[in-house]
Amino acid sequence: MLLLYCMLTKSKLPTKEKHLMIKAVNGVSHRGKVLTLDSMNPNVKRVEYAVRGPIVQRAVQIEKELKEGVKKPFTEVIKANIGDAHAMGQKPITFLRQVLALCSYPELLEDNMFPEDAKKRARRILESCGGHSIGAYSASQGIECIRQDVARYIERRDGGIPSSPDNIYLSTGASDAIVTMLKLLVCGEGRSRTGVMISIPQYPLYSAALADLGAVQISYYLDEDKCWSLDVAELRRALNAARQHCNPRVLCIINPGNPTGQVQSRQCIEDVIRFAKEEHLFLMADEVYQDNVYAEGCKFHSFKKVLFEMGPEYSSTVEMASFHSTSKCYMGECGFRGGYMEVINMDPEVKAQLTKLVSVRLCPPVPGQALLDLVVNPPQPDEPSYTTFMKERTAVLAALAEKARLTEETFNTVPGITCNPVQGAMYTFPRITLPQKAIDKAKEEGQVPDMYYCMRLLEEEGICLVPGSGFGQREGTFHFRMTILPPTEKLKVVLQKIREFHLRFTQEFS
Amino acid sequence: MLLLYCMLTKSKLPTKEKHLMIKAVNGVSHRGKVLTLDSMNPNVKRVEYAVRGPIVQRAVQIEKELKEGVKKPFTEVIKANIGDAHAMGQKPITFLRQVLALCSYPELLEDNMFPEDAKKRARRILESCGGHSIGAYSASQGIECIRQDVARYIERRDGGIPSSPDNIYLSTGASDAIVTMLKLLVCGEGRSRTGVMISIPQYPLYSAALADLGAVQISYYLDEDKCWSLDVAELRRALNAARQHCNPRVLCIINPGNPTGQVQSRQCIEDVIRFAKEEHLFLMADEVYQDNVYAEGCKFHSFKKVLFEMGPEYSSTVEMASFHSTSKCYMGECGFRGGYMEVINMDPEVKAQLTKLVSVRLCPPVPGQALLDLVVNPPQPDEPSYTTFMKERTAVLAALAEKARLTEETFNTVPGITCNPVQGAMYTFPRITLPQKAIDKAKEEGQVPDMYYCMRLLEEEGICLVPGSGFGQREGTFHFRMTILPPTEKLKVVLQKIREFHLRFTQEFS
Repeated sequence: MLLLYCMLTKSKLPTKEKHLMIKAVNGVSHRGKVLTLDSMNPNVKRVEYAVRGPIVQRAVQIEKELKEGVKKPFTEVIKANIGDAHAMGQKPITFLRQVLALCSYPELLEDNMFPEDAKKRARRILESCGGHSIGAYSASQGIECIRQDVARYIERRDGGIPSSPDNIYLSTGASDAIVTMLKLLVCGEGRSRTGVMISIPQYPLYSAALADLGAVQISYYLDEDKCWSLDVAELRRALNAARQHCNPRVLCIINPGNPTGQVQSRQCIEDVIRFAKEEHLFLMADEVYQDNVYAEGCKFHSFKKVLFEMGPEYSSTVEMASFHSTSKCYMGECGFRGGYMEVINMDPEVKAQLTKLVSVRLCPPVPGQALLDLVVNPPQPDEPSYTTFMKERTAVLAALAEKARLTEETFNTVPGITCNPVQGAMYTFPRITLPQKAIDKAKEEGQVPDMYYCMRLLEEEGICLVPGSGFGQREGTFHFRMTILPPTEKLKVVLQKIREFHLRFTQEFS
Repeated sequence: MLLLYCMLTKSKLPTKEKHLMIKAVNGVSHRGKVLTLDSMNPNVKRVEYAVRGPIVQRAVQIEKELKEGVKKPFTEVIKANIGDAHAMGQKPITFLRQVLALCSYPELLEDNMFPEDAKKRARRILESCGGHSIGAYSASQGIECIRQDVARYIERRDGGIPSSPDNIYLSTGASDAIVTMLKLLVCGEGRSRTGVMISIPQYPLYSAALADLGAVQISYYLDEDKCWSLDVAELRRALNAARQHCNPRVLCIINPGNPTGQVQSRQCIEDVIRFAKEEHLFLMADEVYQDNVYAEGCKFHSFKKVLFEMGPEYSSTVEMASFHSTSKCYMGECGFRGGYMEVINMDPEVKAQLTKLVSVRLCPPVPGQALLDLVVNPPQPDEPSYTTFMKERTAVLAALAEKARLTEETFNTVPGITCNPVQGAMYTFPRITLPQKAIDKAKEEGQVPDMYYCMRLLEEEGICLVPGSGFGQREGTFHFRMTILPPTEKLKVVLQKIREFHLRFTQEFS
């Protein structure tokens, strides 16, 4: 543009004509927008988040079409793309919601319709709020008495290993804390840029956050043939390869696994911790599915507990953050955006920086904090809400275990689908064999093959899944992620429909 | 470290000794933490947020000391550092909390204790939630029917100028939307790096977000002598100076002003919009205090309304985002973290990127979304809750207007304090004259002078304010920010105490 100006100004055109042309140039240069695809933050462009990607947008569109009376081969869209328990019909846990209602409208404390333990919890939460209102800002790190309850919960969970409220940061769901922690850790340029190890398949929050921060993603592969287990040799391979081009500093683990549903053995966790210490890596343990363990012989081991059981050589040196959330487990309260992280062995100066950083956003949503308090401090056997609470909690977890089993069994009867056991979390990530002709057809349509498969499934059966490519998978393999959350009877229908679709699809391209 | 290795390896020491020393070096290099002040994200280190800075940390400490029985010249700490209405004793608006209780625990819909209009709102919100639960994730942009209500609210506010729900993004408080918008806008390196114009004094969320994003802050000064008004000549000066070293692309405005409390005239807004168009700047209008206007002759004019009244030459070209929140105005519901932004003339491709970006965090907290819905869709004259709602709303706003007047008047009677009228928002930002000896003393203590002043006030009177240096001020001038939120009787005490302290302090250093 500048060049054009110079040329115009120096040209031998008559003055009037020159001025008119300059004005036109001005017009052109000003007609463009300030913010365009070319002039926006390039890191944001690189962000991808398949769980709410194009397939979900199409699902929403189809729902609208159905409402408008457009004929489809199905009458409803079943969104099995996201771990959203309530949306799938799971009822909220009564006790949690009673306390939240009391906190929202404390006049209800005078009413006789609520049990005493619910009132007691509500009073305690309100007393720790500014002006006794959940409408006041809390401390940026979270309400102190709730952080105390979280610390005690962790101590109970980990068989007495101490936890300090000073190391607890409440957050806006786990996602918020994970992104904050990654942000603290990323620095350097070029070959010194921070590298972050994440599993493949992964939960795409990680790749999205790394793209946004301009950090280097280091992919290590989970072993599908061994129930998606993690192997330290593979960690080492990925690390050594990455050292050529970045500065690996962080190792992220999701256990129980998302999207892969595996539950790590104690031995595996020990190996990972040893590896992190040897290789001087900061550990991030995403443990939001800690109550979602179904398979016999599997047990949730927290990274913190294993770390401390490995002795002071480890427990006093390995830096770690562990994440939890109110969105999963038996409560499934995604909409409240509650969560916490515990930091271990963090440099006190860095902790001060972390506290400063979270203060800029003022505080996590207080209703989500209140909810978290109930999750870590549920009704006790001698309290009036205990029986109902336990009944509801057990029912949810038992149904999930049953659906995990049902899903694995059904998929493994379909030729061309192989499915690892859903040991934990709330997803299955089966492998699908696609005929070469289908792969070619997808390429013709400009889609990756498993996206083509999932789009066809959506259009033909009204079932919304996320293609494996959205989570990462070994080159040449194809998968999808499906939640096991639909109610059992509906899940049976979904599994049957996928079965029929898969056979039809395979037939079509044979 | 590498150098030491090379020296050791090449040294003529006996092999065994060499190996021992290499091991020792390894030990040293591994003893350090992965994440230290030196190895953390340098942008995060540059972040500052005075509203919750060291003075507030000291205030919390003093509160603990008081609880432990430590003797002080006061019995409570009054935190006038932050616009947190409920913490200052303001009662929640009944209607809002009734609907929130109903949404939290829908069994209450069967009860007779709630008015029909509250139930109607709750039913409508629940029907638009997945599984009819506020525990389900919403669409990432926010619940559709709430975005429709927001659009209609904006249309009513702006005298019928159209607003589309597609341009509304619900957010986790306004802060979240502001940071997201800045993130989209920042790109380039060195002299091409995005520059963002912000007022001085400013709300430190802006400087913090710019530091975090590594963007260039371009400071334009508000005119204290003219009631903190904004002058386009000053905008131009700042812009031209900045063009030497960055690429200015964004102009941020806070109206009504925080921390300065001014309300911009319609003429001023027109001038700003004209300037933004001429200089090809993206406008960010922080309008979270839109209901907080007290001074006679002052009126809130939304940037959008003025933009559209300037005709299609402007309304079809100037790119803008406007922000609102549930935390301020008459409701003061900070803890719920509700808010929205409206984007205007945004490139559709960029909008798609924005939608993708917000989807990574899944959704804003649903209780905050529900609350926002009530704010934009309050009880109507023919509804049962109307009278109470209006009474409560009016009482809050009338009290604020009275306190705004009281604050200005009282401060202006104190020699050495000069205070502009608090036309709007909820803060006063008076200028304080500090004796040279006090300035010298502060330097001795390694503090900026107004921080020294505020720390002394906190220690001696138990009043927590934020020093002007936390917001920016003209070189050589000193201020503090105080909220006008304490209840009237307490505010009188606070003003009296500041008066006495100021006289004593001035005396001490004369």
